[in-house]
Amino acid sequence: MDALASLKPELERIGADVDRLFGSILAVPADPRAKLYEAMRYAAIGGGKRLRPLLVVAGCGLFHVDRERALRVGLAVECIHVYSLIHDDLPCMDDDDLRRGKATVHRAYDECTAILAGDSLHALAFEILADEATHEDPFVRNELVMELARASGLAGMAGGQMMDLVAEEMTLDLASVTRLQQLKTGALIGFCLEAAGIMGRVPPEGRTSLRGYARDVGLAFQIADDLLDAEGEEEKTGKRVGKDGAAGKETFVSLLGADRARQQAALLVDQAVEHLQTYGAEADLLRAIARFAVERDH
Amino acid sequence: MDALASLKPELERIGADVDRLFGSILAVPADPRAKLYEAMRYAAIGGGKRLRPLLVVAGCGLFHVDRERALRVGLAVECIHVYSLIHDDLPCMDDDDLRRGKATVHRAYDECTAILAGDSLHALAFEILADEATHEDPFVRNELVMELARASGLAGMAGGQMMDLVAEEMTLDLASVTRLQQLKTGALIGFCLEAAGIMGRVPPEGRTSLRGYARDVGLAFQIADDLLDAEGEEEKTGKRVGKDGAAGKETFVSLLGADRARQQAALLVDQAVEHLQTYGAEADLLRAIARFAVERDH
Repeated sequence: MDALASLKPELERIGADVDRLFGSILAVPADPRAKLYEAMRYAAIGGGKRLRPLLVVAGCGLFHVDRERALRVGLAVECIHVYSLIHDDLPCMDDDDLRRGKATVHRAYDECTAILAGDSLHALAFEILADEATHEDPFVRNELVMELARASGLAGMAGGQMMDLVAEEMTLDLASVTRLQQLKTGALIGFCLEAAGIMGRVPPEGRTSLRGYARDVGLAFQIADDLLDAEGEEEKTGKRVGKDGAAGKETFVSLLGADRARQQAALLVDQAVEHLQTYGAEADLLRAIARFAVERDH
Repeated sequence: MDALASLKPELERIGADVDRLFGSILAVPADPRAKLYEAMRYAAIGGGKRLRPLLVVAGCGLFHVDRERALRVGLAVECIHVYSLIHDDLPCMDDDDLRRGKATVHRAYDECTAILAGDSLHALAFEILADEATHEDPFVRNELVMELARASGLAGMAGGQMMDLVAEEMTLDLASVTRLQQLKTGALIGFCLEAAGIMGRVPPEGRTSLRGYARDVGLAFQIADDLLDAEGEEEKTGKRVGKDGAAGKETFVSLLGADRARQQAALLVDQAVEHLQTYGAEADLLRAIARFAVERDH
């Protein structure tokens, strides 16, 4: 069975779980904040691959972490991911009209609401992690908060997004594009596996293979994204394609060519799977996700 | 001695401390993220009254909390405050050109950088709180994270900002303006005193007087802000004045008139000070801050 087929029920299950949790956390109040909640629900519910929550849940599965708790951590990462999409789509950033197959938040609502919806999801991520429903030990919750703050801030996602904006005005080499993507998308994917180790009470020195897996999957995922942007269809990806070429941005595809990029992604997936060799069948889901990262068409 | 004169050395000291801490945390890296760090430094260093950090430090003073630790908590609140100013000043929000006596971040840099600088300060706040340099007990750090996330998100600042945007299209009564301001500015001021209680290991049931003080000071501060917007000078406030009237926004001044608003603010300050009656001279700084909230000219 190929990776996509074996993953299908897992993807459907995590999608339903994430939607359910967002639905209950974002119950719309009967006051003037209703529009803000609605915009957050619009952005957060019913879309996306839920790759990050799935990585958290699959990673937590290695250590028999309670699924509902793992889902809360996955929800927190998804809050950060969705907030970053909302802000990145804004007119002054990538100026995108389409995301996850529907109008972007600033198009469906307005720019103010989009900025506030992003900001509110950002705060919500930390509120979810700091809640004792996520873990009874405050040390664990605190470590999760620290790692997510690092992965989403200057040393992670936001720093990478800044590099990406600056990159539009210069020519990057492969090392620079790799570094940029390790911050912009890699740090948050890295958090997913780090969080699994934290929830599983694995000490930092025992998380090396998880980190290796995350690094390789994150990079493979980004190369696949670049390939989809260069060759994919808007109908399937649910977002505008051909953006990077139009913006004159260097990507793994522009630097390596499509064939070598594809080979590199495949190599990274093999490497990612190798990092899991000390684990048995309990890591099969992570192995399937690694293959899915490059075999998907959206 | 009036409140302003007695506070002057404290305001200068906290200003220097906050600048020093931001300066060391935001050391500019030699990579393409430099512009982002510079924009954050531009927004965060060398401006503002530092009312929130001062409230944290003054509150922590009641419980003999180490000043450097209290300052870290104050810095985290200031990160949230500065991020909210950057985002609120954006063209799609209040479209302001002037803040703290200089060009707003999107004017001095650009909109993208302003959004990312705000987002990065947002994440930084939680990174600062989650660090063990803030407190050795993860339970304390976790409680700080939870309270700050709540105060800055849907149930606090961001929710209040949404109410404020929606309010432009409707006529609010005094109760609605009060509720709006309790979220938009009150929640974060409330956090400052809540955090003092947390750092001082005061159990939640012992924080009633601190909460009462914060609620009254927060409201008095907002009324004074409305009075400054209606009657103040741009040169002293360092920001555009007369905004609310121009936007047709209901404020405490438009609803009560300047005289009654001034009386109400004075009453709130008296009430705030009364909440501190169980404390002795160690609460003098908090008493002076309460008076400063309404006696300031900027």
